[in-house]
This record gives sequence, C-alpha cells and structure tokens, in this order.
Amino acid sequence: MNVTSVCRQAKLASRSLAAFSAAEKNAILSAMADALKAGQDYILTENKVDLNNLSGKDKVFEDRLRLNESRIDQMIEGIRQIAALEDPVGEVTGESVRPNGLVLKKVRCPLGVVAIIYEARPNVTADAAALCIKSGNAVILKGGSGAINSNRAIYKVLSDAVAEAGFQREIITFIDDTERKATAELLKQDKYIDVIIPRGGEGLKNFILENSTIPVIASAGGNCHVYVEKTADYDMAEKILVNAKCQRPSVCNAAESLLIDADVADRYLPGLMKALIDNGVTIKGMPEELAKYGLPFTPATEEDYHTEYHDLIMDIKVVKDCGEAIDRINRYGTCHSEAIITSDAAAAEQFAKKVDAAAVYVNASTRFTDGFEFGLGAEMGISTGKLHARGPLGLKELTTEKYVITGNGQVRK
Amino acid sequence: MNVTSVCRQAKLASRSLAAFSAAEKNAILSAMADALKAGQDYILTENKVDLNNLSGKDKVFEDRLRLNESRIDQMIEGIRQIAALEDPVGEVTGESVRPNGLVLKKVRCPLGVVAIIYEARPNVTADAAALCIKSGNAVILKGGSGAINSNRAIYKVLSDAVAEAGFQREIITFIDDTERKATAELLKQDKYIDVIIPRGGEGLKNFILENSTIPVIASAGGNCHVYVEKTADYDMAEKILVNAKCQRPSVCNAAESLLIDADVADRYLPGLMKALIDNGVTIKGMPEELAKYGLPFTPATEEDYHTEYHDLIMDIKVVKDCGEAIDRINRYGTCHSEAIITSDAAAAEQFAKKVDAAAVYVNASTRFTDGFEFGLGAEMGISTGKLHARGPLGLKELTTEKYVITGNGQVRK
Repeated sequence: MNVTSVCRQAKLASRSLAAFSAAEKNAILSAMADALKAGQDYILTENKVDLNNLSGKDKVFEDRLRLNESRIDQMIEGIRQIAALEDPVGEVTGESVRPNGLVLKKVRCPLGVVAIIYEARPNVTADAAALCIKSGNAVILKGGSGAINSNRAIYKVLSDAVAEAGFQREIITFIDDTERKATAELLKQDKYIDVIIPRGGEGLKNFILENSTIPVIASAGGNCHVYVEKTADYDMAEKILVNAKCQRPSVCNAAESLLIDADVADRYLPGLMKALIDNGVTIKGMPEELAKYGLPFTPATEEDYHTEYHDLIMDIKVVKDCGEAIDRINRYGTCHSEAIITSDAAAAEQFAKKVDAAAVYVNASTRFTDGFEFGLGAEMGISTGKLHARGPLGLKELTTEKYVITGNGQVRK
Repeated sequence: MNVTSVCRQAKLASRSLAAFSAAEKNAILSAMADALKAGQDYILTENKVDLNNLSGKDKVFEDRLRLNESRIDQMIEGIRQIAALEDPVGEVTGESVRPNGLVLKKVRCPLGVVAIIYEARPNVTADAAALCIKSGNAVILKGGSGAINSNRAIYKVLSDAVAEAGFQREIITFIDDTERKATAELLKQDKYIDVIIPRGGEGLKNFILENSTIPVIASAGGNCHVYVEKTADYDMAEKILVNAKCQRPSVCNAAESLLIDADVADRYLPGLMKALIDNGVTIKGMPEELAKYGLPFTPATEEDYHTEYHDLIMDIKVVKDCGEAIDRINRYGTCHSEAIITSDAAAAEQFAKKVDAAAVYVNASTRFTDGFEFGLGAEMGISTGKLHARGPLGLKELTTEKYVITGNGQVRK
C-alpha cells in the first residue's frame, strides 16, 4: 500500500470538507450510523477472524477487541451524539476593529488532516472518524495488527456510506498495513498530515514522538495525587480518596499518591489507611511516617513516587504544608489530574494557581477528567501537553483558528 | 557552561513566576526599563565590540546589529508598552456547571519556560524577556554569535534589575555559548523547557525542527498571493497590489504572486503590470498569458511560483475563477497571508473559508500581518503552524489553559 498516496488523497478531501455546512457533516454522520447497523453481520464476522487469530494475549486485550451487537449499538449511539453536538467550525472567537477600519475576526476552522494511530479497541475507528468529520477534518486511521480485520471492516462500511451519501470517500482513509514500517512512513507525511494523535501504550507513544516530523498531541500517563490539606473535612477526604484510587484503578485519572499535612497526619491517617486497606489497596510509604499506626504497608522507594501503578496500590507521603505538596506534585506528577481536599480558600487558590496540570480539582475526585464528564460529548484522547490543547480532546480541540481581515482597500503606510 | 543546569534553574524560577500578580510582573518590567537606560553606556560599549568583530558580513546584518541611544530608547518604550498590556494570566476562558454540581473553569496560565533562539538583532533580547515575563513565563535566551557581546550585556543589565527589584534572577537566563552544540543540547531539555521559538533564517529553523524534542512554534516564510477576482475594483486592486509587493519587499508578509481572473486579465493586467514596473518590480509569468500586453517580463518556471523572492520580483498567473485561485494558493502558498480583491460577497466568503492560511484578507494588503497592527501590542514572532497559535504571537499565545474544577465532595459513580 502506498502511504504517501493515501495521505495526499486525504489532504485533497480535507479541502472540500473544510467548507461543509453542519447539515452536510451531520448527513454524513447519519449515513455512517445507519451503515454500521446494516453492516453489523459483516463487521462481527471479521471481528471473529481477529478473535480467532488471538494467541497468548491476555483477557483484557480480548475484552477490548471483542465486538457484539450491543457494542456496535454503542458505536452508533456515539456517532449520533457527535452529530447532535454544536459544529465548532465558523465560530468567531474574537473580533476587533482597528483604527484604520480593518475588521479582524478570529474564526475557528478545521486543522485539515488528522491521523490517529491506535491499538486494540476497534470502536476507536468509528469514534475518531465521527469526531474528525464533525470538526471538518479528514481522518487517517491506523489501527493495530490484532484488530486489523475488525478495523478494516468498520472502515469499509463507513467509507462506503460516505460515498453512497454523495460525498468524497477519502474524507476517511485507512492505512491497511500493520507493519511498523508503515507507521514510520506515516509519521514523515508532514506535507499532508496536520496532527498525529496516538492512542495506546507508552511504547507506541514514544515511537511516535521520536519519529514524527508532524506535530503530535499526546497524553502522558497519569501519576495523580490527592492532597489532604490540614483544614480538610475528614469524611470528604476519605470519600474522595477511596473513589480516586479504587473506583477504576487501571485508568489514567485514578490517583496513585496520597499527600497529607503533618498537622493532621495522626488524626486522619489511621482512618484513611484503613479505608484504603478495606478496599483492597496495598499501601507504600516511609516507615518513620506510617509504622506508628500499626497498619500494614510496605516501604516506598523513590521510584514508587514516580510510578503510575494502574492497580490497587497507593503511596503515602506526609508533607509540611501546601507549598511542599505543590512542589512534590510538580516534581513527581505527570501534569494530568491533581486534587486538594481543603476548607481553606487561600490554600485552594494557591494549589489551583501553582500546580502544573491539565486538571486541578478542589474537593472532588480526580476521576472526572474525561470528555463526557466535562460535557464535551466525546473525546479523542486526553492531552497532558501544554501546547494547543490540554485535557480531554473534544471537537473544539480538533480545530485551529485563522484571522479573517476585511477592509475596503487599506494599505500599510 | 552547563546548559542543563541553566534550564533547571529556569524551570524552578518559573514556578514562582506563575503565581505573580500583574502588579508584581509590571514592577519587574519597570525595573528592567529603568535599568536599560542606566546601563546604556555599558551596552553600547559591548555593542561596539560586536561591530568591530564584524568581517565579511553585509550591510543589512550590520544595520540589524548596531545599537544607539535611540534604539535603546525603543527597547525601553517596548518594555513599557508590554507593561501597559492586560495580563492574560488568570483569565477565565470558559465556565460551566455540570449536572453533579461540579464547577468547571478553564483558566489561562503561563506555559512555564519559553526558550527563544534568535539571530542578529540584540533588541530581541529585551523584547522576548519582557513578553515572557508579562505572560508569566521564565525565558531562556540564546542569541547568535555575531551579537554575543551585545546580548550578554543586555541580559546582565536586565537580570541584575530583576534581582535588585527583589525577584528571582533566574526568570531570565542566558545561554552564554554560541556553539551549535549548545543549541543542540538546549533542544533536548524537554524536562525543563515547554516551548522553543526560533527567530531567524530557514537554516536555523530547520536545524531546530529536526533536532528538538521540545514543541516548536515556528513560522514558515511567506509566499503570499494577491488574487484579483473578476468583480474587483481596479483602483483598489492596483493600490493593494503595489503596497503588498513594494512597500517592504524583504519581509514575510509581502506578496510574491499575483493571481487574476481570466475574465478581467485583458482589462486589468496592462495597468497592473505597468504599476508594478513603475515601482521597480521585475515581472515573471507565462508568455502565452503576458506577451500580448507588450510589457517586459521574464518567463516563469514552476520553481518561481514556489519562491519567496524577498525582493522586487513578482510572478503573475491567470486563473479561471476563484476555485482555481484557492487551489493554487493552497498548493503554492505557505499558510501565511493571502488576499482577495473582490466586490462579490460570495467569492470573499468562499476564499476566507477555503484558503488555508494564518491570515486571509478581503480587500486589504497582506502587509498587515503583524502583532502591533493586529492590536496585540508586540509579538514574539508569527506562527504559520496550525497547532496552539496561528499568526502573530502576542501575550495570549504565550499561555496555555488549565481546567480548575471545584466541588464539594463529588466522586465518580
């Protein structure tokens, strides 16, 4: 397969897509949703091929890969929800009139061509296509080898639907090659691709960051903290801590570390540790800080404080005050989601200002960092970078802005 | 000099700077402006050393390098203007209340550490430092070898002023090493630097893009077009064309190509070509399109249409209609500044929507793409990329946003 040629076609298709009305884009999404229902049997058959090819992969992988009627219905519902969201393209985000009469408008417009490189979950194929099209971008899909037959089937159904609805098929393209060489080639197409979004493990992400000549919007993992400040309400602290750690420990917005002010350590830690232990959490910490409470824990290493466990494990560190908590978070954190539990408005403000993260929580669980929870409707991933987009990537984050300047013959003196 | 150690210090300094009030930042800027005046003789003496070291450089380079009292006054005035601009940090750019009562705010905050790598002009040292500090960022300065003594002197005066005003000296740092090796080392400090902004020629920019592991905000050159649509007013077209090409041909927002609708070519081209020739412009074009007018021109090559001349040279191409003009601009342009001259609102809208550029002009000269002209007060450069910032980089473009989420104990179900 000729990667460059696919990318060139995507770029050409993006030119017309950029000027589509919301109604036209919604017509495409509607055709895509209908086609997924009509093509369900074909997709499930191809998914079986992938499932049969599985060997030596774990249960989690198999669960992510497996499609069924209910999961296809979820994909369809996702597309319909995206269709119902407001079109970000054309929004005027700023306007001014200059002394010489020039009218400056800053207008939201599509990025152009978005390439998404993802692993496992075949539903990303449909989600990413729908988000890109609604935001006026052509999409290039590159899935992992384990789901190649499922992804190809979904792609075929969707792009046939686009063409049958009378639109240019190449607004959705698919790299039908699972070799890493094809990925490497894709990463050099800066002439045609405007942004690369990786969704997958650290290995994939690092390969992309090291090899791409195209801007990448990526997420670091989430080494998230819950900081119990000395004025925190105990019950609220316990509830938020247990939720942030235990509700779904495998995800990036789950908490990994508890920081607590020395002033309340003796009062709060026995209860907090017990609540964690009762929920199956293994605690790590410093013997000189925790041994006195007589509850089980293992000694923490410096490495532990840097670790995103993805598991029912939490490390604990006693800190002097809010300033030390902030310093630790900025040192060990990954700029994802960080929470303070406090009754002191000044401490909350200091924390919100100084903690360097995509999402800073005051008296709430870190688990809310998510496109749907934030009201963006859906997300293309979560960015922990600072440029362009921070936090969940919704439709708006898949756009850029241009200046449109209208005059009546103005020239520069 | 230890580049890593300088970068680490800048990162640490950025942490406190992020929480400074507008008044504190303005106090720093005011101290910097005063210090430049007091340190004027020292700076001019060091500038003479650079001027004496000049050998074999051209007049343009010498003019850029030379400082005098009036140019130092301009630097001071620039800093005072930046102090007078509104502080972008803390601006709430979006707010919503979720069904569970969580209050989401999107709050503007500094990027952290900005490194600027620049050539020649020593005034960039002061401009960049002032823009970064006002937007709450620590700045790392890396100038070119030809201006090393001037840059070092300005840096010393400014950082002494910061320290004497009672603030952390390291909010301004300076890489006192003009070897390319030092630049290469700087480009790998992704742990400490949040963004790199190159200001200089294509060679510098490409070296940075190829070697940086830090996000780069860069400007392509400006291969800008003026498109005279068939409903254009002739006088306006001539005035804008001559301004866009001739007012300052060496800069990136000057026009390089004239596109004109075939319908009005015979009526308009003789006059437009004569106006250009009268202003000293050499015309390039296709003999089958231009020879009939009996005016001097040289045949254009495919390469010409891709060229930013930086000179009194302009190529001309006759097009079928607005669609062909847009296609050519998207093919040959560099996404900088593009203009249409038209009386047809539909053509203007189509052009504004479909042309892929940082600034699209309707009936005005391309020469306005500039931070000061756009009312941003000053600029750190002009971005032709699509991610993060497009067009002139002012204070707002030197910030990012974070979500600050306030609850009263909310946890995820």
